[in-house]
This record gives sequence, C-alpha cells and structure tokens, in this order.
Amino acid sequence: MPQNILNLNASVLSAATVVGSKEHAGPLGQHFDYYGDNDRFGQDTWEKAESEMQRMALAAALGKVDIPQKQVDMLFAGDLLNQCVGSSYGLLSYDIPYFGLYGACSTSIEGLMLAAAMVSGGLATVAAAVTSSHNAAAERQFRTPLEYGGQRPPTGQWTVTGAGAFVITSPEQARGRELARVTHALPGIVVDMGITDANNMGAAMAPAAVSTLTRYFKESGSFPIDYDLIVTGDLGWEGSRILCDLMMAEGLDISSRHNDCGKMIFSRNTQDTHSGGSGCGCAATVLGGYLLPKLRSGELKRILFMATGAMMSPDSVKQGQSIPGVAHLVCLEGRG
Amino acid sequence: MPQNILNLNASVLSAATVVGSKEHAGPLGQHFDYYGDNDRFGQDTWEKAESEMQRMALAAALGKVDIPQKQVDMLFAGDLLNQCVGSSYGLLSYDIPYFGLYGACSTSIEGLMLAAAMVSGGLATVAAAVTSSHNAAAERQFRTPLEYGGQRPPTGQWTVTGAGAFVITSPEQARGRELARVTHALPGIVVDMGITDANNMGAAMAPAAVSTLTRYFKESGSFPIDYDLIVTGDLGWEGSRILCDLMMAEGLDISSRHNDCGKMIFSRNTQDTHSGGSGCGCAATVLGGYLLPKLRSGELKRILFMATGAMMSPDSVKQGQSIPGVAHLVCLEGRG
Repeated sequence: MPQNILNLNASVLSAATVVGSKEHAGPLGQHFDYYGDNDRFGQDTWEKAESEMQRMALAAALGKVDIPQKQVDMLFAGDLLNQCVGSSYGLLSYDIPYFGLYGACSTSIEGLMLAAAMVSGGLATVAAAVTSSHNAAAERQFRTPLEYGGQRPPTGQWTVTGAGAFVITSPEQARGRELARVTHALPGIVVDMGITDANNMGAAMAPAAVSTLTRYFKESGSFPIDYDLIVTGDLGWEGSRILCDLMMAEGLDISSRHNDCGKMIFSRNTQDTHSGGSGCGCAATVLGGYLLPKLRSGELKRILFMATGAMMSPDSVKQGQSIPGVAHLVCLEGRG
Repeated sequence: MPQNILNLNASVLSAATVVGSKEHAGPLGQHFDYYGDNDRFGQDTWEKAESEMQRMALAAALGKVDIPQKQVDMLFAGDLLNQCVGSSYGLLSYDIPYFGLYGACSTSIEGLMLAAAMVSGGLATVAAAVTSSHNAAAERQFRTPLEYGGQRPPTGQWTVTGAGAFVITSPEQARGRELARVTHALPGIVVDMGITDANNMGAAMAPAAVSTLTRYFKESGSFPIDYDLIVTGDLGWEGSRILCDLMMAEGLDISSRHNDCGKMIFSRNTQDTHSGGSGCGCAATVLGGYLLPKLRSGELKRILFMATGAMMSPDSVKQGQSIPGVAHLVCLEGRG
C-alpha cells in the first residue's frame, strides 16, 4: 500500500470570500470580504450571480497581495452547476491557464490541494483555487426552484451562497506573509455505503470523511489531540454526529476537536437551515474568511481541514443509484 | 508573463481503450482493446454503460502492465455527464485516491497532464487518468434522447462512445517499457469568441486551440515542422478547417502536420457523422489505441496532442451565453 499522504511545502498567501445575504446575517457574517444584499450580484440569472461571485473572490484574493493575474501560473476551479459553468464563465475574464475540477462540495480542498501540490512540485510559482455555490441555482438544479416552496426534511442542508478564492505560493515566495502553511494533504477515496436519500447528504458523506481521517491518522501516526481543530466542510449537524460516532467506533475520539463549516456558518436557533449549510461555497468561505485568519494570528496552530463531497447527480439518484462520497484533507499550520 | 509550459519527466506506461459499436466499425476499429456490440456493456442505463467502460478501461490499462490498484497513488477522472457521474460511479470499485475533473472534451489531456505533473513533481510514483463519453447518454443530456430522431446540422458532431485510461509513471520506473514520454505540457486558457451555436462546437473550440498552440510555439521556440503530428482532440471537420486557417493567419502553417481525432475515428464516406466525432472518449481512445502504439513503435517520434473542450452547459446556452473553449496540450515523445 503506498503512503498516500502528500508532504507539501506551500503557503496560502491570500484568501478572499464573497457571500450572500443569509450567510452575512449568520454568526460568521462579519468575517467575509464581500456580501450581496439580494444574492444577485448585479446579474440577471442565479447562475451568472454565482459566476460573478467567483470573479469577485479571485480578484479580491489577488488584490490583497497585489499579485497581477499575469503572475498566476494556473488556476483550479469548480462548482456544483452542470458542466461547472459557475467557474468557466466566472473566470473567463482571467487569462490564466485553467484546470476545471468536479469534486462536488469537496472541490474547495481538491483545488487547494492541487494548487499546493503544483507549487510544492516546482511546477508553479503562484497557483490559485476558486470555488462557489449559490443557493437558488443549486436548488433549482438539484431539487426544485425556490418558487415551488418545497418542504425540506430535518436532515436537509441549506446550500451556501458564497465563493472562496485562495492564492498559493511557496513559503520562500511568501516571505512570512502567508496566512498558513499547507504541510500535508491526503486525497480522498470515493466511498459508497449505500445511502440513497438525496435529502441526507451528511449521512452519505460522513463515511468518506471517516475513510480519509482514519487513513490520515494511521499513515501520519498522529492523533486527534495533535490538532487544535478537525474541521469538516459541510456534513452539517446530522453528518457531524455520524462522523464522530463512526470515528469513536474506530477508536479515535474527535468530538472535542471537531467542528463543521455547515454548523458554523448559520445559526441553528435563528436561521432555519435544518441540518446546516452545504455546497462548495460553505467550506471555502468558512476556511477563507474565518479559519485562515485565526491561523495567521496564532489563535490556531495546526488544523486538519477536510472538505466532503457527494458525487451523485439528480439523474443517478432517480435511476436508483446510491450516493458515493469523497473527502479531501489538508493539514494547515499557522505561525505558531 | 510566466512561462506556462511545464517541463515534465513522465512516461505513459500503459493505455487501454473501450469503444462502442460504431467506433469499432470505423477506420480505427481494430486498434481498440474492447468494444461493445450494443453499447450497453451489460448495463440497464446508458449512464451506467458509460461508467462500465471507465471501469473496464482502467482495469485493462493496469492489467497490461501488471500493476495492482494498490500501487496507484492517485487517479484523475472526468466525463461529460452532469456531476461527472460516469467517473464517480465507474471508478467506485477502485480504492484509489480520486481527483474529479471537468474539462469537457479536454478532460483526457487535463487528466494525463495532471498525472504526469504529479509524477514529475515527485508527488506520485504511479498515477492514472481515465475519461469517457457515451453517445446515447450525451445526446439525451445535451440535446434530445436518440428516440426523438432529431435532425443534426452539417456542423454537428457525433459524440464518441468510448473510454480511455492511461497509467503514468516516471521514466526510471518505466525502465524502457513506456509507450511514450510526456516531456512538456501547456494548460489552456479559457477563450470565448462569441460563438453561440451549440451545434457548432468545432467553431467554439478552435480559437482555444489556436490560443494554446500559438502560446506553445512562442514559448518553446519550436515550429510545426518540429513535430511529426499536431493532433487535436475533437474539432471535427469544421473546427479543424477553422484551426488551420486561424493558425495560418498567425503565420504558422500546420496544415501538413495536423490531424484531428474526430476526423480519424469515423469514416466520412460510409459513417454518417456529419462533422466527425467528439466527446471526452474521442481524444482518449484515438490517443490510447492508435497514436501511443505508433510512438512506441517509433513510427512517430514526437507529437503535440491537444484536447479541446467546450465549457458551456445546456442551460447556459438557453440563457443566451456564448460558448467558451479550452485546449490542453502535451508533447509526447516516442522511442526515436
């Protein structure tokens, strides 16, 4: 069995986030760079609004560190829309070599990991990763248009309207300006435990998170206590509980260290999102807006961040197929 | 402006191809490893048939060089289906760390390039890339179900039913067994020249091919005559003509060197495919089944291979958006 953990030597030089109105009204609202009052971002379709969020996020991430797009060697991007048009149109105005990704809600870390790997491997000096989701665009594509007013079950999650962009370079290039170092990464194996309920993504994705996390602890020889936080992308309340239970069954108690972006981004008491947030934009905005600054300030020293994705389509669910999940993990270290 | 050409040191150790009945009946039919009589591959939906082709292609590519899946460090895969379910379900039986890609019909080379980059950068010992398309699955998703009998315009292309898998390792690991070396790669920039006709993908993608090819010649200082072949993935008859014309306008005559997988895979006289083949499976099967063996035998010494993709969705076309294209290029060298 190969050791699949990638030893990386890369820095997150910059991050920027754009969110919608509900995310701005949530507990982390003040931490995001931009927000839109009506989630339209000046566009006439939800899909174009999502694209515009990606464009804004990348512009802001590059602008913060004064890097012109000409200096970006490559861009990894993706989203949840059919054929990933959020990214292909959103980033069209940038003349940067483009790698399109599809990892469902795991795309944020898939992109960050690949960008960090290309920098570590000496194949890029500066690489960027961008991802997004938009509640209204996702609802009408995956479930029903919002206007239908369809009821959501308690295990259902609320697709986050948001985009996050990350600029990755080498620690030498970063010269101490980085938000955090990417020291290790572990790409996920696709896992299918037979869940067929498309309104319970947390249950479909939790086993993938267990797979990646147990592989990581086993290969690295580390333990949950070695990390200030073990964060998942968007398992929500339901999936987080399943993750902690399954990890306990593996003999690893992560409950005191674990949190989930889907739980953090919305208020459970005052915002009606049932099992919490989801979507590519959930992990990307919470990491970019909330966690990376804490790594920068030293409040967090070392965290594991794992974005999870459900790799089905509406058609595959209708055809009776179960829902495979995948979880990509990175170890991020702050200035400590 | 950074030099975007990636200097790579990787080998294509193995390739395998699976095609449908029409592709088997075409001029290259004898060169593919497996074919299906009825394009179903034992499955009850076209989508599952596409997944099964991916599974078969990877199994065959690994089997040819006797590499167990445990030795594969990572897998890059994608297809044209919504949420890329051809790959996520097709490769579910493999316990290999999985990177999902979406590059439309450019995915074959996007994956091969990333696999070669990870090997070159020392982040993988063995990496694999798999991609596919299925005519019946693509038609009903992007246009209309085949049963409708919709008419196709002369510029329309025929989505190839096929899958191709590539196993990449270092030249040192390959020990002379490789089909070809991957010496350089140039990821494409997304280009949109305002084409809105979803039945003329060749015209939408040709400008992206021009962009990548002119950047490549400029950065590398090489000329078309330095290559035995300059192959595009699936511009078809219409797009190939546009490519050669536009390259001539750039002062680079590629006409004597150029060929296109979409032109090669079907007979223009006896198989009614209008402007030729297309789809992720087109470039993957022609490269894997036909061109790599010619590089291995020494019949070809050095080629440029460029897969092109149209990055729109059916919805974005209906919303009046034009069609962006991307073209990813690799330089492949044989034993010469």
